[in-house]
Amino acid sequence: MPVGIDATGERSEFDSMGSIDVPADRYWGAQTQRSLIHFSIGDDRMPKAVYRAYGYVKKAAAQVNAAAGRLPDWKLRAIVRAAEETIAGELDDDFPLYVWQTGSGTQSNMNVNEVIANRACQLLGGTLGTQQPVAPNDDVNMGQSSNDSFPTAMHIAAVFEIDDRLLPQVRQLATTIEEKARQWHDVVKIGRTHLEDAVPLTVEQEWSGWACQLQACIAEIEHARTGLLELAAGGTAVGTGLNAPKGFSRDVAARIADLTGKPFITAPNKFMAQGSLDPMVRAHAALRGLAVALMKIANDMRWLASGPRTGLAELLLPQNEPGSSIMPGKVNPTQCEAMVMIAIQVLGDDAAVAFAGSQGNFELNAMRPIIVNNFLHSSRVLADGAEKFRVYSVADTELNRSRIRQYVDESLMLVTVLSPLIGYQNAAHIAEEALAKGQTLRQAALASGHVDAKTFDEVVDPLAMVGDGFAGA
Amino acid sequence: MPVGIDATGERSEFDSMGSIDVPADRYWGAQTQRSLIHFSIGDDRMPKAVYRAYGYVKKAAAQVNAAAGRLPDWKLRAIVRAAEETIAGELDDDFPLYVWQTGSGTQSNMNVNEVIANRACQLLGGTLGTQQPVAPNDDVNMGQSSNDSFPTAMHIAAVFEIDDRLLPQVRQLATTIEEKARQWHDVVKIGRTHLEDAVPLTVEQEWSGWACQLQACIAEIEHARTGLLELAAGGTAVGTGLNAPKGFSRDVAARIADLTGKPFITAPNKFMAQGSLDPMVRAHAALRGLAVALMKIANDMRWLASGPRTGLAELLLPQNEPGSSIMPGKVNPTQCEAMVMIAIQVLGDDAAVAFAGSQGNFELNAMRPIIVNNFLHSSRVLADGAEKFRVYSVADTELNRSRIRQYVDESLMLVTVLSPLIGYQNAAHIAEEALAKGQTLRQAALASGHVDAKTFDEVVDPLAMVGDGFAGA
Amino acid sequence: MPVGIDATGERSEFDSMGSIDVPADRYWGAQTQRSLIHFSIGDDRMPKAVYRAYGYVKKAAAQVNAAAGRLPDWKLRAIVRAAEETIAGELDDDFPLYVWQTGSGTQSNMNVNEVIANRACQLLGGTLGTQQPVAPNDDVNMGQSSNDSFPTAMHIAAVFEIDDRLLPQVRQLATTIEEKARQWHDVVKIGRTHLEDAVPLTVEQEWSGWACQLQACIAEIEHARTGLLELAAGGTAVGTGLNAPKGFSRDVAARIADLTGKPFITAPNKFMAQGSLDPMVRAHAALRGLAVALMKIANDMRWLASGPRTGLAELLLPQNEPGSSIMPGKVNPTQCEAMVMIAIQVLGDDAAVAFAGSQGNFELNAMRPIIVNNFLHSSRVLADGAEKFRVYSVADTELNRSRIRQYVDESLMLVTVLSPLIGYQNAAHIAEEALAKGQTLRQAALASGHVDAKTFDEVVDPLAMVGDGFAGA
Amino acid sequence: MPVGIDATGERSEFDSMGSIDVPADRYWGAQTQRSLIHFSIGDDRMPKAVYRAYGYVKKAAAQVNAAAGRLPDWKLRAIVRAAEETIAGELDDDFPLYVWQTGSGTQSNMNVNEVIANRACQLLGGTLGTQQPVAPNDDVNMGQSSNDSFPTAMHIAAVFEIDDRLLPQVRQLATTIEEKARQWHDVVKIGRTHLEDAVPLTVEQEWSGWACQLQACIAEIEHARTGLLELAAGGTAVGTGLNAPKGFSRDVAARIADLTGKPFITAPNKFMAQGSLDPMVRAHAALRGLAVALMKIANDMRWLASGPRTGLAELLLPQNEPGSSIMPGKVNPTQCEAMVMIAIQVLGDDAAVAFAGSQGNFELNAMRPIIVNNFLHSSRVLADGAEKFRVYSVADTELNRSRIRQYVDESLMLVTVLSPLIGYQNAAHIAEEALAKGQTLRQAALASGHVDAKTFDEVVDPLAMVGDGFAGA
Repeated sequence: MPVGIDATGERSEFDSMGSIDVPADRYWGAQTQRSLIHFSIGDDRMPKAVYRAYGYVKKAAAQVNAAAGRLPDWKLRAIVRAAEETIAGELDDDFPLYVWQTGSGTQSNMNVNEVIANRACQLLGGTLGTQQPVAPNDDVNMGQSSNDSFPTAMHIAAVFEIDDRLLPQVRQLATTIEEKARQWHDVVKIGRTHLEDAVPLTVEQEWSGWACQLQACIAEIEHARTGLLELAAGGTAVGTGLNAPKGFSRDVAARIADLTGKPFITAPNKFMAQGSLDPMVRAHAALRGLAVALMKIANDMRWLASGPRTGLAELLLPQNEPGSSIMPGKVNPTQCEAMVMIAIQVLGDDAAVAFAGSQGNFELNAMRPIIVNNFLHSSRVLADGAEKFRVYSVADTELNRSRIRQYVDESLMLVTVLSPLIGYQNAAHIAEEALAKGQTLRQAALASGHVDAKTFDEVVDPLAMVGDGFAGA
Repeated sequence: MPVGIDATGERSEFDSMGSIDVPADRYWGAQTQRSLIHFSIGDDRMPKAVYRAYGYVKKAAAQVNAAAGRLPDWKLRAIVRAAEETIAGELDDDFPLYVWQTGSGTQSNMNVNEVIANRACQLLGGTLGTQQPVAPNDDVNMGQSSNDSFPTAMHIAAVFEIDDRLLPQVRQLATTIEEKARQWHDVVKIGRTHLEDAVPLTVEQEWSGWACQLQACIAEIEHARTGLLELAAGGTAVGTGLNAPKGFSRDVAARIADLTGKPFITAPNKFMAQGSLDPMVRAHAALRGLAVALMKIANDMRWLASGPRTGLAELLLPQNEPGSSIMPGKVNPTQCEAMVMIAIQVLGDDAAVAFAGSQGNFELNAMRPIIVNNFLHSSRVLADGAEKFRVYSVADTELNRSRIRQYVDESLMLVTVLSPLIGYQNAAHIAEEALAKGQTLRQAALASGHVDAKTFDEVVDPLAMVGDGFAGA
Repeated sequence: MPVGIDATGERSEFDSMGSIDVPADRYWGAQTQRSLIHFSIGDDRMPKAVYRAYGYVKKAAAQVNAAAGRLPDWKLRAIVRAAEETIAGELDDDFPLYVWQTGSGTQSNMNVNEVIANRACQLLGGTLGTQQPVAPNDDVNMGQSSNDSFPTAMHIAAVFEIDDRLLPQVRQLATTIEEKARQWHDVVKIGRTHLEDAVPLTVEQEWSGWACQLQACIAEIEHARTGLLELAAGGTAVGTGLNAPKGFSRDVAARIADLTGKPFITAPNKFMAQGSLDPMVRAHAALRGLAVALMKIANDMRWLASGPRTGLAELLLPQNEPGSSIMPGKVNPTQCEAMVMIAIQVLGDDAAVAFAGSQGNFELNAMRPIIVNNFLHSSRVLADGAEKFRVYSVADTELNRSRIRQYVDESLMLVTVLSPLIGYQNAAHIAEEALAKGQTLRQAALASGHVDAKTFDEVVDPLAMVGDGFAGA
Repeated sequence: MPVGIDATGERSEFDSMGSIDVPADRYWGAQTQRSLIHFSIGDDRMPKAVYRAYGYVKKAAAQVNAAAGRLPDWKLRAIVRAAEETIAGELDDDFPLYVWQTGSGTQSNMNVNEVIANRACQLLGGTLGTQQPVAPNDDVNMGQSSNDSFPTAMHIAAVFEIDDRLLPQVRQLATTIEEKARQWHDVVKIGRTHLEDAVPLTVEQEWSGWACQLQACIAEIEHARTGLLELAAGGTAVGTGLNAPKGFSRDVAARIADLTGKPFITAPNKFMAQGSLDPMVRAHAALRGLAVALMKIANDMRWLASGPRTGLAELLLPQNEPGSSIMPGKVNPTQCEAMVMIAIQVLGDDAAVAFAGSQGNFELNAMRPIIVNNFLHSSRVLADGAEKFRVYSVADTELNRSRIRQYVDESLMLVTVLSPLIGYQNAAHIAEEALAKGQTLRQAALASGHVDAKTFDEVVDPLAMVGDGFAGA
């Protein structure tokens, strides 16, 4: 029986507060409808990823309940099928609720309970709206509470997002930067500190720093992900596991691990797992770390590409679109700008997540929707942003070798290499003289009398100044 | 000729970088299509409100150009009609771009230029894709740059959002709180400071503080709105007004004021108006101020309604939906929770806006999309949240008078009124004794010997302790 | 009798919890001593400015109490003298408490009460530690609570800091920028948008944008300051004014206005004035607005001064110190960097202030110490930073005119002015050709055939392209 | 020869910019003096911990230089002694610089170089101010740059702060909470979710959640600490190691590990280590995680202790000081409030750190002073705050057992346990009836006809409802 209800108009659904009409072609029930009325706030909808993750929770719980003899097989089969359809996204249109709702996520949990129950009723030949033979609270939510199941779904959704989208994209970006770097291992360029001319390094060395930042961010995200593998399921209402059978925590986590292929385990302390959202706060901090690194990289790239005539102009970014509506021929570092804005947004999202994470009370942190929404948002825009940045900017960036060479030739800070020979103070005066008189460093050095031409030419060799590899001296 | 293109497949469009295919049934052109490809990042689309605001900019600019003899009347008429359709939202589906794009908003400006140009071409019998007889850059963007027109559209969109949605909702919420307060002007309740029992006040007085906070927030938003009335239009590329005719700044602002019915004026310094986004940062700070106040109010309400048996239980919030998937009969302060989450999100958005506001360089702050998106988002969720909070919670809140009375009777802090008579230290000891021995304040006071029964009964009168009005002593 | 206690060892002091030893040479009493023990957290001390402001509160309250016949003249005179010594900073060493204390500021209020009481006792020949003849609670705190007096002191301290330090420094910085700008009204330079070459403007125009940002920030701080003029004094414990005489609110505010010469008034709603700290949150937002503007300015200056050989190098910042411990002759934009860091810190402080502002409960926002500390900190470092930035960097900045001229000559974006003549697309192709072939704009333009030499030389005139003044076209 | 200079007045010191007078009794030189003049901004001084850490860097570098034959033994001995005095804090008064200085920390590095050089000159019989026989740049800074040595000192200082102060205090707090929890393993209390009555748990279970949060924070801080063990030393100016001998990176890190007894290693990529401050950003995120957890705990404690008569009143916090200047006998949760404010400040500091971390450019992140200052500040106030909170509040907290018992008896949410027997909807109606009619749950349940007295008494047993242990069902 395919997904879908062949009906028009409205259907009556009920909950403990009474009856209410819902659209006849939708699977949702009374509580979803109430939430739609009471919480139509802005355009922010609970991400579909949360519902797909919830599908795993409901399927696993049903299987454990059945194994414990609490749920008959024929109900199990219907619930499992509906849960699988939820996982597959086939019921996405039946999950319409807003982010701004009850802080426990109860309304989204009930949305899932209602949809799965009604779909199961449909599969079993029941009448929609009767909660017969499958009821949302008693059957689909059996052994669960929103208080434990919603954070479980949050963790599952977050891990999928990290695994399926974020880490692959960040890894590819790091790899692309490393590959570009290797191509330019012999190009010596001027370094800059405080935005001011400094001593030389290779383009590879400069780019290696960016790649290394990204690799460290990847490792940190992987670390934070381990915190998300601990699931609250089995704590039920306040963490004690009331109304769930013995062993439910462990068994549901094992089922979810099996279904998802990810090493989920049960959280050792359910009072923390439901009273706090600390692992989510930590995971978002890892996203923020990535944003911080990407902002540095994107800023460096756009500054190095600034120009073409009146900027640094060391890099040539690919030209993807006209840059200006008024200035003909202008091309702008738009991918870098998008990445910078994404990074800033992630820092703003991160502030919201940490604030919300601190606002739990007693046995519940009732700030869950805002936290999961920000996490999935940040992760998504970082992943997509990293992809676009890589494909449309980094991968086709080229060097302006003549400009790079010119800077090395003109820089006065090569004087640094003379310092061990003639002392810092003498070296400083040579650089100052060269700048004041518009001389080359060589002219000023020879004029100073502190070094002869032969020595200068031997010692002041940019290529020799870049050392060897990435670990410094 | 109604809006719409009767075509299928694709159509070739061009810009200075060459040709590209676009969907044949869409008005947009080459640059929009390039942006769609290069910037499909997440689900965040540039808000439609920006495009509607842009409609005013394009209409006004065309009128001023025509008046200056730079645009023929027949082109003017077609452009004006397309701009009016943009304002009316009839072309909304032709504005598909993402928030994460070029930081100047150029791609959205070009999207508007292309759509209006193609719609005008259609109206004038031209062939779509030829830029004849109306070209996006030369005709629709005439006298403009993204650099001045995008912040102009930002300000217009923000002012509309404030006027049409935010302020009406906040005003209604304040009014509702004031009306509820007045009904309870004679209900004396216990005050609490540091969460601890304090001296009495009336329910009206307590609620008046909330209303007063909101009124001050309204005044601040109105103040910030005046900063948004200054428009950048006429600065063109870098603020100098290159390629715009003399007087363009003043005339376009006057036209926009006329078209919108709002007192827009031209910004006195275009280098600030384009190099910074300071008025937007300030306006978002005003939204944040509202979030701060609403968080206090929502928190107070949910704490005062906590219980029903083991909390403060002074307020009875309306019961809109079952609160728990596992605990039958539970009802939760869900509107308050939604409001708290909204407030937290606005603080996070605000951090992003301020950060972005600081990141301008030289003649452009290229962080515009993130700022306008956050502003419109914050304003929207605050407005909608205020509405739902009022309608579904505040308006039908009731008092639990017996509980309120009981607290007043039991509180020991009424001892404060004895302090001027018997001294702070003696009064303190009475309170301590009462608490230690489980006595009423009266029992402990009489036992202390510092006050006799007659005096106690005269002086310790909760009703007399609440003073008069709202301004204190 | 001069300030000071000629005693060594310890002295016993008492409060309602009993006796405790304090240093014999200090004026403080039991509650100050308890706080010192319980709250020695970090190095953050309550700013002295709070105590000086409190001096005004205590003096004014005593005067109003005396006028109401509640305080005898001989006590009044002693309290007033001690309050004046507090205002003058002569008792600063007697105010040792930490920021991290009770959220109402009660411990600092009691510190003031104790010090003034003991100093008054000393002046009147009493014995320290006896609370005779002047007692901290009954006499010095008469008609007051920490709940109303601490926010009163916060507002007074903030207004003094704004008036005496912040606004004068920001005004001087703006003036210096304006003066420098005027000197360079005829220097044409290249504009930059998206970090990329754009069309010309004058140095004066560019600098005028910075000055205009600062002027708007000044206006905003002045606006926010008006919210700080409303004082909570007279609300006492919960806003009702319990234990204060009729008219106390109005009279104390009037006295404070008289004593300070600033137009303080009583807050119309004491429940807001004590339950929230919204005016402080708004005032900090105004500081943040200044930080946002200063960050743009400092960043622009350091980028424009980058080099000397491999950066933009348009500005020559004064060289105040050697820049590098290893690179001889290096000079860095250190004042700009300090300003950028200050701006970032102010944004961090601002996040803390807004968060704290949202955390009030019922009749008290118990987050006062953190808010006043951050406000005074932000204001102070902005003021001092603005001074150093002006004196040691902006005032002696010079132009690198040859570099500025060179950029104008080389830029391709002057092509923009040809756009109205030959169309955007043709102009774009000229710029692209020039860049690809390394030509000047003139060479490429003539080669294109779209413009002849005479026209080019007439139209492409940088000086003519900068328009007139600051308001754009 | 003891530390100290027996001189008055001033002494001339020089650097590459010329001569300047310094106080004759101070060891610092010209660059320190210049910084004092140019950067006297606010009261924020570079933390002494940075200088003590720098002592290790200078000692280790001198030892490695000597081993490489670049520094004679007699100079080595003098430099090592001065470095050891720096480590011991004996030279603290000679390190007066402000936080707001050059973003590389060069001025503080030069301060160390100058002080050690002059102290070494003094020890060797040289004349202060001559840089003979030991020069600050050539000898003390040999093989180093501020660019690599300052972040090295940052990491060392941060690790010491974590090890010596923060982790011990957080561990003790967690232990105290665990010990208290165990004492109350058999006290059943009512749970609360959404601030509303929920099902029971034990006091131990509730407190275990807090302890578990802290243990996870400790683990996270330990994880972040590993990132701080990687040192930049040996990268010198831009990461290439120019002017340092081969192997310097590895050898200096090994020396520092040896001297400190901590497993420091050299950073594998110096371009990341100097161009970013990512490990510091991540470490501060771990501090923030702790702040988030402590805020939850402190808030829970003060709410549970609210009252005594009109709040929740389950906990009895120790009474350390009178709470109110006006309300006699009032006691407030002041340690909790201080902790909440500390947590909020750490979140604000964290926003500043992340922002600053994103603002690196090319081979340097010039936002170091703000980051190390915030890190050391956050860590310090968290550690001290945790200590005071434990000693003066948590350790002596007691239960109000009668109130706790009363809540369990009155709560209606015990109905949840009936749900599997009679269905969610029937259970809900029982709870609603009880509330509406002011009945006990037992009365309403029996009246409903869904359950008989015997069953009710068997099933509705709070003690049986709390499950077993901490991991839920």
